[in-house]
Amino acid sequence: MEKIRIGIFGFGKTGKIVATEFLNDSLFQLEWVVRKGHEKHHKYASRLLGQEFDAGEIFSVEDIDEMFFIEKPVDALVDFSDSTGLYLYEKAAKAGIPIISAISKYEQKELDLLKSFAESTSVLYSPNITLGINVLMVAAQILQKIAPHADIEIIEEHFKGKKEVSGTAKKIANALCLNVEEHLHSIRVGGIVGRHEIIFGLPNQMIRLSHESINRAAFGQGAIFAVKFLIGKPHGIYSMETIIAEMFRNNIPVY
Amino acid sequence: MEKIRIGIFGFGKTGKIVATEFLNDSLFQLEWVVRKGHEKHHKYASRLLGQEFDAGEIFSVEDIDEMFFIEKPVDALVDFSDSTGLYLYEKAAKAGIPIISAISKYEQKELDLLKSFAESTSVLYSPNITLGINVLMVAAQILQKIAPHADIEIIEEHFKGKKEVSGTAKKIANALCLNVEEHLHSIRVGGIVGRHEIIFGLPNQMIRLSHESINRAAFGQGAIFAVKFLIGKPHGIYSMETIIAEMFRNNIPVY
Amino acid sequence: MEKIRIGIFGFGKTGKIVATEFLNDSLFQLEWVVRKGHEKHHKYASRLLGQEFDAGEIFSVEDIDEMFFIEKPVDALVDFSDSTGLYLYEKAAKAGIPIISAISKYEQKELDLLKSFAESTSVLYSPNITLGINVLMVAAQILQKIAPHADIEIIEEHFKGKKEVSGTAKKIANALCLNVEEHLHSIRVGGIVGRHEIIFGLPNQMIRLSHESINRAAFGQGAIFAVKFLIGKPHGIYSMETIIAEMFRNNIPVY
Amino acid sequence: MEKIRIGIFGFGKTGKIVATEFLNDSLFQLEWVVRKGHEKHHKYASRLLGQEFDAGEIFSVEDIDEMFFIEKPVDALVDFSDSTGLYLYEKAAKAGIPIISAISKYEQKELDLLKSFAESTSVLYSPNITLGINVLMVAAQILQKIAPHADIEIIEEHFKGKKEVSGTAKKIANALCLNVEEHLHSIRVGGIVGRHEIIFGLPNQMIRLSHESINRAAFGQGAIFAVKFLIGKPHGIYSMETIIAEMFRNNIPVY
Repeated sequence: MEKIRIGIFGFGKTGKIVATEFLNDSLFQLEWVVRKGHEKHHKYASRLLGQEFDAGEIFSVEDIDEMFFIEKPVDALVDFSDSTGLYLYEKAAKAGIPIISAISKYEQKELDLLKSFAESTSVLYSPNITLGINVLMVAAQILQKIAPHADIEIIEEHFKGKKEVSGTAKKIANALCLNVEEHLHSIRVGGIVGRHEIIFGLPNQMIRLSHESINRAAFGQGAIFAVKFLIGKPHGIYSMETIIAEMFRNNIPVY
Repeated sequence: MEKIRIGIFGFGKTGKIVATEFLNDSLFQLEWVVRKGHEKHHKYASRLLGQEFDAGEIFSVEDIDEMFFIEKPVDALVDFSDSTGLYLYEKAAKAGIPIISAISKYEQKELDLLKSFAESTSVLYSPNITLGINVLMVAAQILQKIAPHADIEIIEEHFKGKKEVSGTAKKIANALCLNVEEHLHSIRVGGIVGRHEIIFGLPNQMIRLSHESINRAAFGQGAIFAVKFLIGKPHGIYSMETIIAEMFRNNIPVY
Repeated sequence: MEKIRIGIFGFGKTGKIVATEFLNDSLFQLEWVVRKGHEKHHKYASRLLGQEFDAGEIFSVEDIDEMFFIEKPVDALVDFSDSTGLYLYEKAAKAGIPIISAISKYEQKELDLLKSFAESTSVLYSPNITLGINVLMVAAQILQKIAPHADIEIIEEHFKGKKEVSGTAKKIANALCLNVEEHLHSIRVGGIVGRHEIIFGLPNQMIRLSHESINRAAFGQGAIFAVKFLIGKPHGIYSMETIIAEMFRNNIPVY
Repeated sequence: MEKIRIGIFGFGKTGKIVATEFLNDSLFQLEWVVRKGHEKHHKYASRLLGQEFDAGEIFSVEDIDEMFFIEKPVDALVDFSDSTGLYLYEKAAKAGIPIISAISKYEQKELDLLKSFAESTSVLYSPNITLGINVLMVAAQILQKIAPHADIEIIEEHFKGKKEVSGTAKKIANALCLNVEEHLHSIRVGGIVGRHEIIFGLPNQMIRLSHESINRAAFGQGAIFAVKFLIGKPHGIYSMETIIAEMFRNNIPVY
């Protein structure tokens, strides 16, 4: 079987780990990585990540010209750069290359542009692209419908240095119509990578759903999951939660 | 609105708590309770349970004659007695009264009889009738389908005196095709009412689903939930897990 | 061996459970219970609590006269009433009867009076008299000294109806010099009896200490533990945390 | 202040992480690392670990001659190699250099040799050298003495590939006189680095003590902690649990 060719935008802390996951998965061929600046330019991401083979040639954003996506074709483009990355790969999207974006936050203008890509290709956008956290959110929303009188509280735990409240936790709170000020509790201690817990309390019983990231490679695995899902799908905009919700629908057990 | 009339078989430790929950819910009228033996016969369950009004007249199994279910009609019959209770209310089932059975374990003969009731009425049978534990099981089965490579382990915690492995935990293990000897861990300490945890491990992330019973009134609430569901449903055999699975199907979030 | 004779002040929700624990422990003889009002006066607490024998004669606060503690002697007096209860048993304290008070909160005036009792008898005062929560607090204080750079957060979980922040959690926060506003998180859901968790985070490891009350009988067991400790001790004021700290000191393992 | 000079034996997976922790701590100067084989010999550990400076010259075990420890003096020697490493640094020990060994398991012969080192220097031996796990063990032993009737169970969770039962968990079970077959439960799922939980159950309350390793750097921090403790101590054999027990003794809170 031919390998799925991947191009990555972004080579920061998370981008590197995501690249590593694609390099380690024999289903994929990492074609190139686009990063800011000229530093370590035109080398291979694989070498920089400690591998003994050449893969993932590194380009600067300035290398992106008219011909880039034609001369260096990929089957999917994965974006872990920043909110302006998408201006650079507009041509790729118009040419029908599936786009996976895991950017934390877009301005409305960028969000509109991303959505416009969906006319010519399939686009998946999810700020938190791990499988588990989206499973947690979908399960929690269903449970809230099943037990509408349950009291619900969310606890999110992250490393001491994380200043803001977890965006993922806020998204879950919104999906559950919970007031963030009252029902979302942020714990900041030590080196916790990331943990989210949703507590459902009824008078006589409790349900707790929790997700814990062991390390950031979970994001790479999420991107791999997203690419596999997206290839071959109709044009349109997708998100991890729509995928997971669909998987819930297709896997209801029969007794 | 007219109250839903309830008859209960069984007045042991759990039966009493279930009766209390029906007494406390203004939607219901507890008509009678059938118990073994003559002791405290022809009094009211309500009085024995510390209430200041008369409800739930107590009958002995020997009081059940041809006319019992005609003279003392109910809208649903809830069985927390034992595996032979169903012989006594065969007539009720044939007359179309919905049956809720929470008996732990039936012999095949009794199970066949119970199933035969489903030709003339709606029958719900669930050894563990709490809402939460069934939500846990359905969610776990879906999650296993979404993440088929996840390692799964089950921990069940109960009070020191509980000798056998939790039947509920074994049922969950079976639903997940897990070998009970290898993947089910039983903790027996102190006075824990009952806690089940299902652990999903992926290389970079963990999901934990847990259910904890605070007290046995959870069974009464489960019975109330089951009665509300069952009344008006077509003849047939139902279980808590089929109800919950159906509720999952009807409540998949749309984004 | 002669039984330890106990008198209890207070017969509310917790007082009743505490009385039950003393009734069920063959080491003790519950002599009397003093409660407010005349209701069910001069009956036996044992009967009101479902026992088949007479114990714990019930008296009204108005029955306490000059001779009460002389005519109805006890070996220890346990107070689960309210902050003014101690005015009634001043004479008992002066006569040398050990006092165990589990009152939630005293005004300074009452606190001074309680301390004055310590000149003539041994007095133990602890708003939270469970064994476990005090073990948690002492262990947390030691751990903070061993790992002074650890980040510490406290989560307390209680039933939805509990309005105020857990006094026990505030006490632990104070003992650890943590700002309550920032580092204490209150979860209010369903019917949780009471759970406290102290989280210690270091860059590469986490320690979590948690205590969970299964039911209020834990307070009765704490009172029993306190009575056993207090009898025969020198005059003075004691608390559960001083007892537990002393037990830590006497039980450091030797390798 | 002069830096504390460190020599490390062992440069495997854990050895590298331990070296990194010493390199990153300005209190220490990593002088050398001794590893098996000639590969990457006479380079600097710092460079191999991604640092931009020279520290921790790498030597082969064959480089250890009569003069090694005289020509390349250190203030403490840290051993993360294997059970035979100690034959190579016998001379260092006889010369009074403090030894920290974190070898998992010694044969009796090697253990006797290690103990003999204690006549001429201070030796600390702990198979699990993290701070947290030893705190857990000491606290659990004290708690068992305080609540001798508590039921105790241990759960240890590690990555799927870990074949054997956690040695640390077995050590804790032994310290608590618990039968390993009955009371120790091993969970093997996904990529969990390592988690130990000790559950204490009483009829009305539960205490849970848990320790979780976020990553293996916890071993390096444990070694740093051990070196700081050991320097200047009298000759003799020490362990992390004796240090922690001593710290418990010195930090009992006073109320």
